[in-house]
Amino acid sequence: MSDNVTDFKFLEGVKIVDLTQFEAGPSCTESLAWLGAEVVKIENPRMGDPGRRLKANMPDDDPYYFHMFNANKKSVTVNLKNEEGLDLVKDMIHEADIMMENFAPGAIERLGLSYDVVRQINPGIIYAQVKGFGEGSPFEKNLSFDMIAQACGGTFSVTGAPDGPPTRPGITIGDTGTGMLMAITILGALYKRRETGEGHRIQVAMQDAMLHYMRVNFATQGRTGKAAQRGGGKVPGITNAPMGLYPCAPGDQNDYVYIMTSRANPEHWDRLLSVIGREDLIGNTNYLTPGDRVERSDEVDEIISAWTRTQTKQDAMQLMGEAGIPAGAVLDTDELNNDKTFEDRGVMQTMAHPVHHDFKMPAWPVRVDGKASRLKSSPVLGEHTDTVISDWLGLNDAAIDALKSKGAIGPQ
Amino acid sequence: MSDNVTDFKFLEGVKIVDLTQFEAGPSCTESLAWLGAEVVKIENPRMGDPGRRLKANMPDDDPYYFHMFNANKKSVTVNLKNEEGLDLVKDMIHEADIMMENFAPGAIERLGLSYDVVRQINPGIIYAQVKGFGEGSPFEKNLSFDMIAQACGGTFSVTGAPDGPPTRPGITIGDTGTGMLMAITILGALYKRRETGEGHRIQVAMQDAMLHYMRVNFATQGRTGKAAQRGGGKVPGITNAPMGLYPCAPGDQNDYVYIMTSRANPEHWDRLLSVIGREDLIGNTNYLTPGDRVERSDEVDEIISAWTRTQTKQDAMQLMGEAGIPAGAVLDTDELNNDKTFEDRGVMQTMAHPVHHDFKMPAWPVRVDGKASRLKSSPVLGEHTDTVISDWLGLNDAAIDALKSKGAIGPQ
Repeated sequence: MSDNVTDFKFLEGVKIVDLTQFEAGPSCTESLAWLGAEVVKIENPRMGDPGRRLKANMPDDDPYYFHMFNANKKSVTVNLKNEEGLDLVKDMIHEADIMMENFAPGAIERLGLSYDVVRQINPGIIYAQVKGFGEGSPFEKNLSFDMIAQACGGTFSVTGAPDGPPTRPGITIGDTGTGMLMAITILGALYKRRETGEGHRIQVAMQDAMLHYMRVNFATQGRTGKAAQRGGGKVPGITNAPMGLYPCAPGDQNDYVYIMTSRANPEHWDRLLSVIGREDLIGNTNYLTPGDRVERSDEVDEIISAWTRTQTKQDAMQLMGEAGIPAGAVLDTDELNNDKTFEDRGVMQTMAHPVHHDFKMPAWPVRVDGKASRLKSSPVLGEHTDTVISDWLGLNDAAIDALKSKGAIGPQ
Repeated sequence: MSDNVTDFKFLEGVKIVDLTQFEAGPSCTESLAWLGAEVVKIENPRMGDPGRRLKANMPDDDPYYFHMFNANKKSVTVNLKNEEGLDLVKDMIHEADIMMENFAPGAIERLGLSYDVVRQINPGIIYAQVKGFGEGSPFEKNLSFDMIAQACGGTFSVTGAPDGPPTRPGITIGDTGTGMLMAITILGALYKRRETGEGHRIQVAMQDAMLHYMRVNFATQGRTGKAAQRGGGKVPGITNAPMGLYPCAPGDQNDYVYIMTSRANPEHWDRLLSVIGREDLIGNTNYLTPGDRVERSDEVDEIISAWTRTQTKQDAMQLMGEAGIPAGAVLDTDELNNDKTFEDRGVMQTMAHPVHHDFKMPAWPVRVDGKASRLKSSPVLGEHTDTVISDWLGLNDAAIDALKSKGAIGPQ
């Protein structure tokens, strides 16, 4: 595996003061860390990022979640309620290219680090903020979390069985999905800044970001004039058949294969009939066009299921795939975790950590010149307090100790 | 609204040769167009991007889908099977900063535009590719679409009712989710390139990209050692109560409100009891700690539902939100489309198009200095053939006409 990873240096020298917590903000700054930026988390000396723990007041009991969104970062513990602590962060902001936060509405202003304050300190800074709802929204003061953003952003309304209740997509698109759009915009600003030196305030709301991922549903709404519906395993409004989940052997909860035929490739149907041993149906006018098959989709689904039930999902995927028909087994986290091919290409890597045990986890999935970005440890709380303050601000040991004794920075 | 939008110029002057189709590739290049890059789609003169149509051989019958992923781009029609057409694209590649493609595996090489060919033409180019499965995966030659990537990337396995089948998240995270990770990486490469002039080959597989959005599930897998499960409206493994969907009046299919109490904020529970008029339960030892409430979650859910059933989802969201409890109504595309506040902040904008009727759609949701990026038309097939060839390559009208008469480029 080590041959397949390297240190990405695209953002070498870019300094980020990272005041984010949980996932929406941290996923964004982490993506910049994968690209080589120096991301310094500013954390509360007592408890740190609440993403470090599963329960309130229980420090560091969830390293897994924290690792995911804080790999390749540094941690500096500062008491922002202490005047000298706040001044120290302002000094760091003076040196930084980017500052990011995703506190509850109003909190960054109460801390004394509003955009108006920060731009005075560093007019060239890119000041990035994630909130639940947009400035100007009737809900702009409301708290949000991933599920709230997803509910209000439409994703629940299009997920689940057609006759069932709205359902949560099992992925944290409200958080990480938002973080990725922020990262793109920050990088655009950073590119231009090389030329102009100009700073900007960049804001995204999690509810607003959901519309970006809902666009196929808004296309359906545009075409039909009605709310996009839930489709279970299908995609409502897309008139392909066959398309959907088909049950496989031995029939456990995730033993399904997704098979689809594309609207752009009418030849998929004949190929599929050959794979399932039903060449007798090639050319049968009952099933000739996609329109015919949509009309008889129950029949078509049963023809395919009669075959898939005799196959494991992996075999069904392989046989369909080899025949040029898009097909995918429904894989769960355990199966994905046990699939060594992800490690072979650096998509999964093992984090070696100074305190917690080794942990294999997804790394940045985009490869550059055939190599993945090297996974490094998530930071222990306050691990880099001394080194970062010394590197960024030139303070010596005595000055750092003085800050510690005054409670301005963490004791580590 | 016009006050709230502006032309983003972060990537002004960046030239992109865009050979992408459908969504995973186009969503990526579109994000760069939102930031101000000049994105030129190279399209087949006869039919163009298959994303322009809902059915095979039916040109331009789905402008809605196409608008979503091709706003703010240009279209040049070139016959890549014609030698002079291919040479023309090579000349454009020579002038470009980025080239991107998401054809089926092997297709770009068969077209004669492999990375080895392209880097000879332009060693400084950023050459970006999206495929269904990673180079080195046993499925690297397989076709993929959004649902295939999602099935094989784990998202189906964690979506749906706990006792039901795997379910498709109703959003195209397989496509757009992948495109966003590619955009971040391209922008990293572009930033460094200002200094070094170096080109790179950047690759992402849709299956691999899904792991990035599945990370909370992989954290659960890490903690429990078992495959992450489906939770309906809940998040399995997160021990908050109350948390979930609660039914609202009048009881239609999307009349639910999501209410959650955060592990980091134990005060949410008392606030919630006040909102629902059950101050009598504040301090009741049956429900005192999150642990108590998880143990009695059916009771807790019923206490809350007794109140939510008397409220519309909008009222429930507002009352909870004002009291400082994270809450979100389940909104559908029609409700979101009719909510004028999205237009007020430029998150939804109306596309004026030279051929199709006006269409309101989601724009880039991230705002810079309080303004959104201006939505411009998606291109008519071949709309910019003459102007781009003239601007980029300096060909005059006679030369362009000659290419047309030879069938190398489209006639518009």
